[in-house]
Amino acid sequence: MRTDRIYTMPIRAIWLVLCALTILLTSAHAQSDPLPSWNDTAPKRAIVTFVDRATKAGSPDFVPPAERIAVFDNDGTLWAEQPLYFQVLFAMDRVRALAPQHPEWKEREPFASLLKGDMKTALAGGEHALLEIVAATHSGMTTEEFDRVVKEWLATAKHPKSGKPYTDMVYQPMLELLAFLRASEFKTFIVSGGGVEFMRPWTERIYGIPPEQVVGSSGKLKFEMRDGRPVLAKLPGVDFVDDKEGKPVGIQKFIGRRPIAAFGNSDGDLQMLQWTAAGSGARFCLLVHHTDAGREWAYDRQFGVGHLDQALDEAKARGWTVVSMRDDWRRVFPFEKQ
Amino acid sequence: MRTDRIYTMPIRAIWLVLCALTILLTSAHAQSDPLPSWNDTAPKRAIVTFVDRATKAGSPDFVPPAERIAVFDNDGTLWAEQPLYFQVLFAMDRVRALAPQHPEWKEREPFASLLKGDMKTALAGGEHALLEIVAATHSGMTTEEFDRVVKEWLATAKHPKSGKPYTDMVYQPMLELLAFLRASEFKTFIVSGGGVEFMRPWTERIYGIPPEQVVGSSGKLKFEMRDGRPVLAKLPGVDFVDDKEGKPVGIQKFIGRRPIAAFGNSDGDLQMLQWTAAGSGARFCLLVHHTDAGREWAYDRQFGVGHLDQALDEAKARGWTVVSMRDDWRRVFPFEKQ
Repeated sequence: MRTDRIYTMPIRAIWLVLCALTILLTSAHAQSDPLPSWNDTAPKRAIVTFVDRATKAGSPDFVPPAERIAVFDNDGTLWAEQPLYFQVLFAMDRVRALAPQHPEWKEREPFASLLKGDMKTALAGGEHALLEIVAATHSGMTTEEFDRVVKEWLATAKHPKSGKPYTDMVYQPMLELLAFLRASEFKTFIVSGGGVEFMRPWTERIYGIPPEQVVGSSGKLKFEMRDGRPVLAKLPGVDFVDDKEGKPVGIQKFIGRRPIAAFGNSDGDLQMLQWTAAGSGARFCLLVHHTDAGREWAYDRQFGVGHLDQALDEAKARGWTVVSMRDDWRRVFPFEKQ
Repeated sequence: MRTDRIYTMPIRAIWLVLCALTILLTSAHAQSDPLPSWNDTAPKRAIVTFVDRATKAGSPDFVPPAERIAVFDNDGTLWAEQPLYFQVLFAMDRVRALAPQHPEWKEREPFASLLKGDMKTALAGGEHALLEIVAATHSGMTTEEFDRVVKEWLATAKHPKSGKPYTDMVYQPMLELLAFLRASEFKTFIVSGGGVEFMRPWTERIYGIPPEQVVGSSGKLKFEMRDGRPVLAKLPGVDFVDDKEGKPVGIQKFIGRRPIAAFGNSDGDLQMLQWTAAGSGARFCLLVHHTDAGREWAYDRQFGVGHLDQALDEAKARGWTVVSMRDDWRRVFPFEKQ
């Protein structure tokens, strides 16, 4: 290695020094407050204390960067999930869009009621009805075609309450938390019951989470040659359900390493939090509790979307952090007036 | 942001400038030759040209770093696979180790022949016999227990021909290629027919590939509470076979993004290379051809481990890069004398 090389590349050297200064100034700024949309209450203090412990060299709780895996549920944890999971609203919009090609749906439940606007009857069939709607709208095309359909829907559809695009319905405090963890050399993953092919087209743009760090439920895929070109066809069958006991299984299958921090909001996240908490060393588990009927919604123990009952009891018993959206978040959505 | 901050942190600033200089010197050194174990033949030149094109700002083939996904088969591409896949040798050692707890194996094939040292009869049952051996040795324990067993085996077992630990039987040119791609901001993944739980305990140490970037075949897992502690039990059933048509499916399931570069050595990798090649923009596909009976092994079209027939024809027809180990590699294994 010849040291005189450095004199032959002045532009690159200057650029690198500028980078170093940028990192320095950025980190100095971040130190002022990485979580400005969080009130200065117990959850924010618990997050900052945990990150300090896990990242400070020489700390007894120090975790090497490679092991700093943080997993986030999506629906109700990173973005809203009312009046229904957004993916279900997407599927219903797709049924309406595809109806002209399926005249038989006029006579067949759950499609008939859905097309008449009677959601209650359409969803009365429970999980079976929902699976029929998902199969009809999430298969019969290639992965590339589905990617396009999701992007088009997100670019045009509006949330029924706020009138905003669905990708605006994300929680500002959680965006700051994701950025804070990544700035602290955590690798952030989504581990969601939602469909992985429904999330991957937009998670990088909205959350800064690339497709390869999104774990979710999935349908079966089939590799085929069509006119000499390989495609992956989306089949109607369910391949993996990434919910409840499926979440730690999904973590092991897709990540292969136990997280040190887990963030959820419902009983569907309980096993993921248990699995995370049971590892040795620094651990952090957090539940978002929807307590803000004014700015968002207030719900927990009643059965339905975002059902939070057993996990809330276990969080209290084990000392996991519970965020009250009303009390602990200064701001909920990015579009809120300050 | 206050610029006077930089004067209050001189040690940090000095450290960052030193880092910048280190990066500069390291890259200046790397520019001298990132692939010293490759002969200066067509494959090396094709790799360097591809990486230049994909990474040079302003190049018509420029690929943003987030999309620089490179996928590598493991057996026969990153490490050897003769006289049998190392995972099969592991499974056979496990049968011998577990035999005292299974007296019934003395009377039952394929175990009986295997325990007598008659591999030919043991494996005469083909895939079914192999699945029986894998099920018996890769399940009935937790994921944590299996991780320990793999690590213990690798720490003690020796390759029957070289007498070296199996993790020494890796290809030096491919280690350099992995490092070169990562230095060029590629994200490197393994996409192997081998068991994901067999690879993850050591790929980070040996290849610099973390567990979350290893895609492989897998058995079913079950989340259970044992004495109040959550575990993931390894069940005997097959969950996913990451081979042939399964490879592009695995890429979509686990990575969710089409690679721009793919490296394999057998017909089991053909569909992965086809899927990679069919994307738009800069693409690179490479086959390692085992042509070196002296330093390694020479095999291709005959049926068996590393069967390379159709993929070799397709590589020639499509202009994919084919590496002849004998002609294109200056050195095969890291332990070879120079």
